[in-house]
Amino acid sequence: MKKLLLLALVALLGAVPAPGPVQKVRQFRQAQEPQLLAEFEQLVAIPNVAADTDNLRRTALFVQDMMRRRGIGTQLLAAATPGVPPVVFGEVRTPGATRTVIFYAHYDGQPVNPAQWRAELSPFRPVLATGPLDRGGQLATASAAGPPLNPDWRLYARSASDDKAGVMAILSGYQALVACKLKPRVNIKFFFEGEEERGSPHLAEILARHKARLASDLWVICDGPVHQSGRKQVVFGARGDVNMSLTVYGPRRPLHSGHYGNWAPNPALALARLLASMEDSTGRVRVPGFYDDVTPLSPAEKTALAQVPNLDETIRQELGFARPYGRGQSLVELLNQPSLNINGMQSANVGAQAANVIPTTAAAVLDLRLVPGNDARRQVQKVIRHIEQQGYHVVTAEPTDAERARYPLLARVQSEPGYNAQRTRLDLPMARQVVAAVQTTVADPVVVLPTMGGSLPLYVFEQELQAHTITVPVANYDNNQHAENENIRLGNLWAGIETMAAIMLLK
Amino acid sequence: MKKLLLLALVALLGAVPAPGPVQKVRQFRQAQEPQLLAEFEQLVAIPNVAADTDNLRRTALFVQDMMRRRGIGTQLLAAATPGVPPVVFGEVRTPGATRTVIFYAHYDGQPVNPAQWRAELSPFRPVLATGPLDRGGQLATASAAGPPLNPDWRLYARSASDDKAGVMAILSGYQALVACKLKPRVNIKFFFEGEEERGSPHLAEILARHKARLASDLWVICDGPVHQSGRKQVVFGARGDVNMSLTVYGPRRPLHSGHYGNWAPNPALALARLLASMEDSTGRVRVPGFYDDVTPLSPAEKTALAQVPNLDETIRQELGFARPYGRGQSLVELLNQPSLNINGMQSANVGAQAANVIPTTAAAVLDLRLVPGNDARRQVQKVIRHIEQQGYHVVTAEPTDAERARYPLLARVQSEPGYNAQRTRLDLPMARQVVAAVQTTVADPVVVLPTMGGSLPLYVFEQELQAHTITVPVANYDNNQHAENENIRLGNLWAGIETMAAIMLLK
Repeated sequence: MKKLLLLALVALLGAVPAPGPVQKVRQFRQAQEPQLLAEFEQLVAIPNVAADTDNLRRTALFVQDMMRRRGIGTQLLAAATPGVPPVVFGEVRTPGATRTVIFYAHYDGQPVNPAQWRAELSPFRPVLATGPLDRGGQLATASAAGPPLNPDWRLYARSASDDKAGVMAILSGYQALVACKLKPRVNIKFFFEGEEERGSPHLAEILARHKARLASDLWVICDGPVHQSGRKQVVFGARGDVNMSLTVYGPRRPLHSGHYGNWAPNPALALARLLASMEDSTGRVRVPGFYDDVTPLSPAEKTALAQVPNLDETIRQELGFARPYGRGQSLVELLNQPSLNINGMQSANVGAQAANVIPTTAAAVLDLRLVPGNDARRQVQKVIRHIEQQGYHVVTAEPTDAERARYPLLARVQSEPGYNAQRTRLDLPMARQVVAAVQTTVADPVVVLPTMGGSLPLYVFEQELQAHTITVPVANYDNNQHAENENIRLGNLWAGIETMAAIMLLK
Repeated sequence: MKKLLLLALVALLGAVPAPGPVQKVRQFRQAQEPQLLAEFEQLVAIPNVAADTDNLRRTALFVQDMMRRRGIGTQLLAAATPGVPPVVFGEVRTPGATRTVIFYAHYDGQPVNPAQWRAELSPFRPVLATGPLDRGGQLATASAAGPPLNPDWRLYARSASDDKAGVMAILSGYQALVACKLKPRVNIKFFFEGEEERGSPHLAEILARHKARLASDLWVICDGPVHQSGRKQVVFGARGDVNMSLTVYGPRRPLHSGHYGNWAPNPALALARLLASMEDSTGRVRVPGFYDDVTPLSPAEKTALAQVPNLDETIRQELGFARPYGRGQSLVELLNQPSLNINGMQSANVGAQAANVIPTTAAAVLDLRLVPGNDARRQVQKVIRHIEQQGYHVVTAEPTDAERARYPLLARVQSEPGYNAQRTRLDLPMARQVVAAVQTTVADPVVVLPTMGGSLPLYVFEQELQAHTITVPVANYDNNQHAENENIRLGNLWAGIETMAAIMLLK
């Protein structure tokens, strides 16, 4: 009642309260939407897959240009190993500040198979749509709509979410502070990695090499999606990750399935039998010891998990499948366990190119997610031992003809180095301040998640720099990251700018 | 000793015995090698996959041209259904002949995936090599070598063996007779089909529609490979064949394997588990009733099988795998049983395009080979019932969102009509005459095989025309038919011309 009166009084007098920092940042963004979107479209139009080193470098240089336009001093941090995509680093000192926050995002993206994208899309030709294209959205142009753009519109392109949205939100959050003359209270550093989607194989080396320059009190990692409810979230850890690829072998040349079927061994069958041996129908991994070294959740973490809104049923319906894995556990509970996922599987051809052959090989790519207590190398070894227990002779290089002729069950297994999981303590004071800062930008309670299901090389920061990390994502959860038709909801990009600006104003 | 004396006498007198028909045909072919090869290269250069209807028709018209050049009256036999690739038919009447032999080959080829062919090859750009490219052969040109060409050379192209070699051997066999003034003793008809690799879906219709024109005493089917020993063979039957394709379903859109791994069901795992349930590690099919309705081999057929040279160990070594399927049975024994082969399998991507996703679907193509007693539709039903017994709801069309959301295990199963196996009696008199005719062209004993492992729509000839069929293949066994890098050994093409000419001289 008092509030109403006050509002009436303010209206009567024609005086409005001075806008707070969040409002200023929002007004800046609203005024700048066309310019911000145009720059972001340029950023996502540059191919950024690991195999395309030239364009990956162009991406890094474009990010440097973005920093220079914002008055940020920038340089490239190289690994000792030649040819590694550099880290784009930047720094802004704040007079009198005693603490330093370093903002992380990555400018590289997942591999693309353009043939799998919708016909009207191309991974590196960003296009706008009035909503998700698989749920009624239509292609659209910003100029036709005019500002302000509908926040439910999407921009489709590889890395539109993962993780050029992170780069954009951080740099534009800083840009908004400068434009609005809001003074940061901490020293700010920027760290944009170029190998995250490859498993960050040179991150430890770069951190160790540039240790002094990277000194900070907290790393803020801007990657991944916000909560499925649309609520902002702050995440205290991430699963680790390691990829394995398996190839099993049949005859040296493809054989006519009539003239040899029943006699020559079929590698597709062998692979199916091998993969089937790894997991039961509930997704429970049957590799011996797979769950053995998991560190139990702390009471505080269990409490936080219990407070995360449970949208499982809504998400399941949206994703259109009948029954989740697990035995009744929730999504967030299951994300606190290690996983074994089949990313892809292939032997010869299906569809119009299928032929009546016994294939020569069959291959699968596995993705192992790790939780605290797991070790990437140890987890890979458990899977290799399981393969051996199925009767396989395991090699790491392409087998010789002699090996193929000798071993009835022969598997080539390759694994990336991968990295381990990490969790920051829920009661770390500076992390709590970040939660509070993010909370200033929204009315709905910020979701505090002990760990995300996805992976980030957070373990490496702890190991190399004894640094604290906290993850503050910006993307919509239905962004198709890592797959075809990746996109970002514009409203999430805009909200991300406010989030990053608010964290930069941390006391 | 007497023979030696006779030879000496012949040499002394300078007189040589008049060449027999086989020798005349051979001399003709030797003289014509460059012309024959040039024409054959033109034939295989025309794409002939089912999806490319324009080029398939061009292939048919080119075969007609080949027939006209040889003075054979020709016409196209259409199906009642519009758009079906026509049969290229031809006929040569022999004055006074009381019997008619009709020669069958097919001009269509298996689908191609050019990316899977060796870098130096392209499916419809025929090239010569000095031997098998995977065993030391080098690309070569006929003009550089000059005639006669080394019979161990190979010509690489789709359908170089399967089955344009059949078309070429039949038409050039006839051409040789005319050129050598050797009179056929039977009426000769020619029947070149354009849908064999699709499972001959309109063959029955065409046979029924043109029944009178196709009257004959014997069909000679020129398709498939000769024995692995290189010995010529005459085959009294073929396995039937029917293809099935399976698709199983996961989430409606690809999901980040970190954010959803352990919770969203993975269709690649589901498919692996389903395929693994179908066969054990010895290739024994575990689909209930799979072997139930097999007609046992007759004593004569068992005897013939026992006489087939056993090269299993040599072939196994050449194919480079360690252990054949089965429990000690020979290749020819196993080819007298029905089979279930995985032709191809795919879910998302492997290799450089692999991404950390939970795929939306996983698919496999199966090839069921049938033996006498099996029925194609019944065999497919057994597999479908097995899939249902694994807990699947089976649909035949792309499932709706509602179906995907309702059934935890959902499989789309499609099957082609396929066709049944066929076996001609080993004691059929005219068939025995064919064996004798083929034997006139070679010194090594002709292999008599009760059935081949591969499939031909022989069942349809019996059903529609009550016709007898016998199969006389020409291709080398290591021809990569149905796969990438298909090829024919030139010596096999030349020997095939002699084989076909000898059969045309049947009394």
